[in-house]
Amino acid sequence: MLTNIRILLVATTHPGNIGAVARAMKNMGLTDLGLVTPKIFPSDDADARAAGAEDILRNAQVFESLDDALADRQLIIGASARLRRVAWPQLTPKQCAVKVVDTPHLKTAILFGRERTGLSNEELERCHYLLHIPCNQAFSSLNVAAAVQVVAYELFQAALASDSNSPESVSDEEMANGEEMESFHEHLLETLYGIGFLHERKSSPTLIRRLRRIFNRSGLEKTDIHILRGILATIQKKTGQHLTPSNGCD
Amino acid sequence: MLTNIRILLVATTHPGNIGAVARAMKNMGLTDLGLVTPKIFPSDDADARAAGAEDILRNAQVFESLDDALADRQLIIGASARLRRVAWPQLTPKQCAVKVVDTPHLKTAILFGRERTGLSNEELERCHYLLHIPCNQAFSSLNVAAAVQVVAYELFQAALASDSNSPESVSDEEMANGEEMESFHEHLLETLYGIGFLHERKSSPTLIRRLRRIFNRSGLEKTDIHILRGILATIQKKTGQHLTPSNGCD
Repeated sequence: MLTNIRILLVATTHPGNIGAVARAMKNMGLTDLGLVTPKIFPSDDADARAAGAEDILRNAQVFESLDDALADRQLIIGASARLRRVAWPQLTPKQCAVKVVDTPHLKTAILFGRERTGLSNEELERCHYLLHIPCNQAFSSLNVAAAVQVVAYELFQAALASDSNSPESVSDEEMANGEEMESFHEHLLETLYGIGFLHERKSSPTLIRRLRRIFNRSGLEKTDIHILRGILATIQKKTGQHLTPSNGCD
Repeated sequence: MLTNIRILLVATTHPGNIGAVARAMKNMGLTDLGLVTPKIFPSDDADARAAGAEDILRNAQVFESLDDALADRQLIIGASARLRRVAWPQLTPKQCAVKVVDTPHLKTAILFGRERTGLSNEELERCHYLLHIPCNQAFSSLNVAAAVQVVAYELFQAALASDSNSPESVSDEEMANGEEMESFHEHLLETLYGIGFLHERKSSPTLIRRLRRIFNRSGLEKTDIHILRGILATIQKKTGQHLTPSNGCD
């Protein structure tokens, strides 16, 4: 039930934290660890803190970019300590766990950022949901392994609970993955620049972020992307925009 | 509400774990740390892992025996990884949190044992309740700071929940209403017919239904509608469609 969940650590600085994450994951029945540009890995410190979960470290995938790590992911959730100005759909650990466990067929990634600075705004905008662990607002920075422990704990509890009353929900359609969402967003922006709705200099990042949010929230399926890109291609054609092959609706 | 709760570490070996416990506590609004015969304390390792929660370490009480540490405690709960042969009343972290938060007047201690061996049977028998964190039975030994993090997290959530009317996040934006959604959908269809993506006769109702679903699922706010209709108006203008006043983006 938890096999489609990848815990994704972005640019982790201290290898000890990677080991502690592996231990927290194995304690809660998670096995898929991804590392995006870790500063030091593999490492003896990581092994020491894994304390019996070295198999998780041996099987961890290291990615050279977040794009690579998300390419095949269909549900993307990012942990964030701060509450953002542009409200992004936000989940508590428990809500996150229920959502993830309710959709076991989706290839899911849960992102945890750098020790000091977390995930960047750009990285958070790749997410369908933000995950916020309610805590003391005067001291809100959890250690990354502690944050993973809380989320993994809730995932395990949710899996336990749904084991007792679960006819597995069958989804008929396949969700778009991270790569398809990115291509769509690029195509959308290109079209909006092309028709003059957006202007390279004048348009505010907030507007662009909002557009991204509208479609991220919608939980687009592959067929939806196909339709939306068909619309964009038609607009480009009708307004005389040059169509590059990659933007076509294929 | 959480002030009467003492986290009590028994015979901890690694000072780094004590620091990590302090951080986990402060993150979740706990302040009272007790240490029964710690192997090494105070320590630079503890300070380093506390990462901003050194005040918890400075104020920690060190006890020479469990008796001393429990002398004034009215409710005693002991964390245990194993399920015991002699059944003791047992709580999940959530049940424990609800119980503790429901009795804020009781001086409470929650005990966490040694890294390798946990609490002895004798120590567990001092407890009113045992606390067991459900986890992967094939790898059930949580790091002590990770265990404290889970329990502290549940305590904080229970305290939040019992703080009856304090919603953490206030949604500042107003959702679009049914009328606005309908006008948007009409505007969308008109535009898609205008650019020839839809054809009065040929387009299937399924396609139109899908388009509606994409935007309905997204939970659009008034501002989102405003932006989307701005895009539609721009497309109509660029493709020479006649703009009726009702379709404008106002």
